[in-house]
Amino acid sequence: MLLHLSTWQEIETYLQQSQGMIFPIGSTEQHGPTGLIGTDAICAEAIARGVGEATQALIGPTINVGMALHHTAFPGSISLRPSTMIQVVRDYITCLAKVGFTKFYFINGHGGNIATLKAAFSETYAHLEDLQIANAPKVQCQVANWFMCSSVYKLAKELYGDQEGSHATPSEVALTQYVYPESIKQAPLSPEVASGHKIYSATNFRIRYPDGRMGSNPGLATPEHGKQFYDLAVKELSDGYREFLTAE
Amino acid sequence: MLLHLSTWQEIETYLQQSQGMIFPIGSTEQHGPTGLIGTDAICAEAIARGVGEATQALIGPTINVGMALHHTAFPGSISLRPSTMIQVVRDYITCLAKVGFTKFYFINGHGGNIATLKAAFSETYAHLEDLQIANAPKVQCQVANWFMCSSVYKLAKELYGDQEGSHATPSEVALTQYVYPESIKQAPLSPEVASGHKIYSATNFRIRYPDGRMGSNPGLATPEHGKQFYDLAVKELSDGYREFLTAE
Amino acid sequence: MLLHLSTWQEIETYLQQSQGMIFPIGSTEQHGPTGLIGTDAICAEAIARGVGEATQALIGPTINVGMALHHTAFPGSISLRPSTMIQVVRDYITCLAKVGFTKFYFINGHGGNIATLKAAFSETYAHLEDLQIANAPKVQCQVANWFMCSSVYKLAKELYGDQEGSHATPSEVALTQYVYPESIKQAPLSPEVASGHKIYSATNFRIRYPDGRMGSNPGLATPEHGKQFYDLAVKELSDGYREFLTAE
Amino acid sequence: MLLHLSTWQEIETYLQQSQGMIFPIGSTEQHGPTGLIGTDAICAEAIARGVGEATQALIGPTINVGMALHHTAFPGSISLRPSTMIQVVRDYITCLAKVGFTKFYFINGHGGNIATLKAAFSETYAHLEDLQIANAPKVQCQVANWFMCSSVYKLAKELYGDQEGSHATPSEVALTQYVYPESIKQAPLSPEVASGHKIYSATNFRIRYPDGRMGSNPGLATPEHGKQFYDLAVKELSDGYREFLTAE
Amino acid sequence: MLLHLSTWQEIETYLQQSQGMIFPIGSTEQHGPTGLIGTDAICAEAIARGVGEATQALIGPTINVGMALHHTAFPGSISLRPSTMIQVVRDYITCLAKVGFTKFYFINGHGGNIATLKAAFSETYAHLEDLQIANAPKVQCQVANWFMCSSVYKLAKELYGDQEGSHATPSEVALTQYVYPESIKQAPLSPEVASGHKIYSATNFRIRYPDGRMGSNPGLATPEHGKQFYDLAVKELSDGYREFLTAE
Amino acid sequence: MLLHLSTWQEIETYLQQSQGMIFPIGSTEQHGPTGLIGTDAICAEAIARGVGEATQALIGPTINVGMALHHTAFPGSISLRPSTMIQVVRDYITCLAKVGFTKFYFINGHGGNIATLKAAFSETYAHLEDLQIANAPKVQCQVANWFMCSSVYKLAKELYGDQEGSHATPSEVALTQYVYPESIKQAPLSPEVASGHKIYSATNFRIRYPDGRMGSNPGLATPEHGKQFYDLAVKELSDGYREFLTAE
Repeated sequence: MLLHLSTWQEIETYLQQSQGMIFPIGSTEQHGPTGLIGTDAICAEAIARGVGEATQALIGPTINVGMALHHTAFPGSISLRPSTMIQVVRDYITCLAKVGFTKFYFINGHGGNIATLKAAFSETYAHLEDLQIANAPKVQCQVANWFMCSSVYKLAKELYGDQEGSHATPSEVALTQYVYPESIKQAPLSPEVASGHKIYSATNFRIRYPDGRMGSNPGLATPEHGKQFYDLAVKELSDGYREFLTAE
Repeated sequence: MLLHLSTWQEIETYLQQSQGMIFPIGSTEQHGPTGLIGTDAICAEAIARGVGEATQALIGPTINVGMALHHTAFPGSISLRPSTMIQVVRDYITCLAKVGFTKFYFINGHGGNIATLKAAFSETYAHLEDLQIANAPKVQCQVANWFMCSSVYKLAKELYGDQEGSHATPSEVALTQYVYPESIKQAPLSPEVASGHKIYSATNFRIRYPDGRMGSNPGLATPEHGKQFYDLAVKELSDGYREFLTAE
Repeated sequence: MLLHLSTWQEIETYLQQSQGMIFPIGSTEQHGPTGLIGTDAICAEAIARGVGEATQALIGPTINVGMALHHTAFPGSISLRPSTMIQVVRDYITCLAKVGFTKFYFINGHGGNIATLKAAFSETYAHLEDLQIANAPKVQCQVANWFMCSSVYKLAKELYGDQEGSHATPSEVALTQYVYPESIKQAPLSPEVASGHKIYSATNFRIRYPDGRMGSNPGLATPEHGKQFYDLAVKELSDGYREFLTAE
Repeated sequence: MLLHLSTWQEIETYLQQSQGMIFPIGSTEQHGPTGLIGTDAICAEAIARGVGEATQALIGPTINVGMALHHTAFPGSISLRPSTMIQVVRDYITCLAKVGFTKFYFINGHGGNIATLKAAFSETYAHLEDLQIANAPKVQCQVANWFMCSSVYKLAKELYGDQEGSHATPSEVALTQYVYPESIKQAPLSPEVASGHKIYSATNFRIRYPDGRMGSNPGLATPEHGKQFYDLAVKELSDGYREFLTAE
Repeated sequence: MLLHLSTWQEIETYLQQSQGMIFPIGSTEQHGPTGLIGTDAICAEAIARGVGEATQALIGPTINVGMALHHTAFPGSISLRPSTMIQVVRDYITCLAKVGFTKFYFINGHGGNIATLKAAFSETYAHLEDLQIANAPKVQCQVANWFMCSSVYKLAKELYGDQEGSHATPSEVALTQYVYPESIKQAPLSPEVASGHKIYSATNFRIRYPDGRMGSNPGLATPEHGKQFYDLAVKELSDGYREFLTAE
Repeated sequence: MLLHLSTWQEIETYLQQSQGMIFPIGSTEQHGPTGLIGTDAICAEAIARGVGEATQALIGPTINVGMALHHTAFPGSISLRPSTMIQVVRDYITCLAKVGFTKFYFINGHGGNIATLKAAFSETYAHLEDLQIANAPKVQCQVANWFMCSSVYKLAKELYGDQEGSHATPSEVALTQYVYPESIKQAPLSPEVASGHKIYSATNFRIRYPDGRMGSNPGLATPEHGKQFYDLAVKELSDGYREFLTAE
């Protein structure tokens, strides 16, 4: 059930049976010479909708811009500052907690979002208690990273070994190829790819990772792999969401 | 050209020929008993993509949650506070202005966004000048409301007269029916509909407008009307964008 | 009744009969070669006091610095950033709502304030509901622009036609001449005056509008015209305030 | 020379001979049963204008709402939070420092403003250095409290002794009587008046100081005293401003 | 009783007998050629612990970085901006007020903290009332500057006369020598020392005070003096804390 | 080398040979019936000083209050909100980066700090680039959690097995016993201890973890164990710091 395709009366009805909601969260950032700038949001959204179908969960609007400051020296990347993103998450959850939602499951497609999301959850719990919203002590948020699902991780290792890398990975590129087969990109990929540098400022990142990839060979990706990753992630995160719903 | 389906190298190439970009901006808010919660984002996104095709413009990620605080007493509505939204817009434009974009055209589907967007533009211009970004004095933002296009307005009056109303209007509902024919909703619509109250707090709004409509009869909407609105808006805003690009 | 010339006990008494209050809001910004930097605050304050006399309304302290970032390349202009102004308005109204005021009527002299004021109202309504102030759902704010009164607009067109322009207009200059006849300024006004450029950054504004005027010929202003504008605005806004007070 | 009655070209000329500017800053807060709510702003503004005449200084718009949170349990009091006021001061000075002003002299009528003003000055100096404004290291701000002038203090002790108190004092009431003789208020003043309690929250303040006075007997004030205070403050602060201008 | 060496159950017990707490607050800033960068925190912490022993008060964690923006052109100095420090103090007190603490006594070692601390207290009182915390109207904060104790001041005058100066003073250096005798520093101290300049930006400060001292001769300090200052400050502030606890 | 026991001239000298600095960061939060509220800061500080001795690194002031919102229902716990902590870290690093420091190593004692620290680093890198500080692209921050050192983890498993738990662990309690043998606490520890609940709001946390422990048996701790943990952590983090210094 997609929030944006529902009426408020349908949501009122939904709330009588579930107080849970899933937010896909991605990023708008460079993904190397062949990766789509929307990769992280595309993956998160596709998987979240799959989980929504499997679990009857309500899926909120995709958060398509996240915390990607380190990518912003590459044109087309957009980022919130962490302090902005904390306010955004706080605003979203506050609106929804006031009308009765208590379980927020963020299906995340971007490693760079994790720290800020967790900080935002802490800030939000305290804010809701300050507001003395009836449900405040019941509100629970969780970040679920599809790319860290054990089944996904295992398959990526099998298919790509070390060439999976850690950004602009063949696994995420494969998933976008499955979702948008008409947007499969071709571009030269040098066999040597930078890896192993930590992430600091945007300027530093572009110097260290000149074509945007971090140790990955996205040339290995295929749409068929993408479907496999999709299926695994949907299954594992559907289980994760169900468990989250029932946890105290 | 959709940013999320492009690579950073494609954006680098695009920047050599154009420094313009279009952001669809909507809202996630109740639209009466039969209107979709995503109506404003759906309309803005569809039209923006049409404009993008007509003008070769780059289309950024849809801002699907806007300033809808007054709707938040209806379940499913999500809003940024204006102060948060100002930071969000500032963050987006700062990232893009740094790499060379100077013309930002916001195709907007929600009246409630206008004031905050304009405030955000002012804040952003000053911020960019403070940062001493080379292009700062050239950066221009514009909000273009599809529902205020003269051709759209004229058609809405012809088709619906006074029953167009001002929220959950048949014109916007029609457009969503055209885009998502599988999500056309049915629900009882009382012939009497509240209208004429100004907008204040969320609690007050729900008291004044108990089913969420403001003077409208969305029951008049059809997907065929939606296509007409779409075509008119795309044409008028494509002209608007071209003019914006060439303005000093 | 002027707040700054009242005692707190007089305000306590006033509150028993009215919960309404008027804030004059202007700006401190260049108004061309002959316009006073305080024009917008002077006009708003004078008219607000006239309305106060006509309606027995309480008049708060004049907000004499507003949102004028685009004028700040001209010396003497002062502006709040929109994000600051939102906090200012929020602070003002929160103090007053807590002690029982519910109707806030902002008589505004500066077009550049409108967007930020509206954003501030939205932010404030939500803040008051978060604070669970008893009166929160009753709090109503309205911006009333004296220069957009239909009677004022009509007279300006009659007297000045196209030479009214949109900034440093003869109508506002006339009003300041009526209020401060000893401060009527003389300076060369080139017959050609820039017009038609949209408003972006401060640097851009000064390039486009080198003497600060936007399409106007303030040389046409006379104190007698000023009195006419004053009388029309006071009458129309007094009606507006009375209507605002009685609206649900 | 009053900023609000000047044109931008007059300010441009002024800047060639002086980079100094005076801001009157007061408060909008209860001043006991007979004191005007605008007392602090009225006194600061009147004295600042006197100093302006004596020294040819430019006088900016009066900051008529300050930091008076502790008075807000009395109706009619309005306060900025300190964090808001810091942003306001930062915004004012940033605009003016960018066009060449470097010396900002705040003639202050309210003890409660002092701490926040000083904090704001520190924040602003650092902000200007961050912006790399050419004049940043030259920018100097000073708060000058008229009620702490030694000549004023001495006269108050002579005229009122212990009955001067520390809020709603006869000296400040006298000064407002001199400026607004038509607004002299009469109200019962109990001979016992609270004093000696420290200032904490608004609720606490109203409990400790039930009629708003702090140890004062404003019944002793006369307009003639007010003229004396005015003359002394103008003279002492004119000297103070001249000294400030010449200090490195 | 030191908070960091207590368990939460011990604090629960403590709260049954006292709702008071002491925070040492210092700064991390240059103190001339021979003064320790931690001087202000070292002095505040040592004295606070002495007061804690004398009065059985609970001592919170030392706030070792304060408002020292004007010192930051000297390497090793660290400062919060005032707006940050206000949030820090607000966060601290809010946590503690929620569990029952009401009396917060800040033993301060740095003059530059005073204004911001006072601003922070005002902001916090209002915040607690907004949160409707039961104890909000009872919460009281006080800043107690050890270097302004009359007994300390008197001794410093006796020992050092004018050579006490106002920063990197022999009295504070002496106190650090008493606390850390192993860290007594030797460095050339020119007999001429800058003094009398007001404090503005960091750049300006370093130009005016090239070795960091303000009119002081810290070469006069001895650990024995330090012990005397310590004893006097502990005694005077212990009395001050007891008085603070019993004040309404 | 401890910053607070150094002079600014010593820091100036230090900077010629190293641009690195270590910050101990802990928390002020409940640690079960026998754990010290300062545990995390005590451990981080002690280890950081050991690392400083081993590597000649400069050690900054201990950040003794961190992100512990979830513990604040237990008396004595103090927390910054994440949004405050981000500003604090930003302020610290900005001061130091301006004078030439580029490598910031945060030795951390509290898991709850990690997310916010990482968010703060991202915010800070972008801020420094915005300020156009010369060194901005070279600035690097790293969080090093002593309790996640592999040698520490291994020893904890050997000594305590599952009774290590995840909060108020015997390993951290042991380390505080080693540092403060005079503050070893005795209190009843029920053999059953809550575990396995995720962390949400403060209220929820206290319900789930009634005595504050998370699956741990701190009764197993001894000061001798503490020394072992200390030695291992100092060794491993000294290596870590050296590696960090030399990394590009």
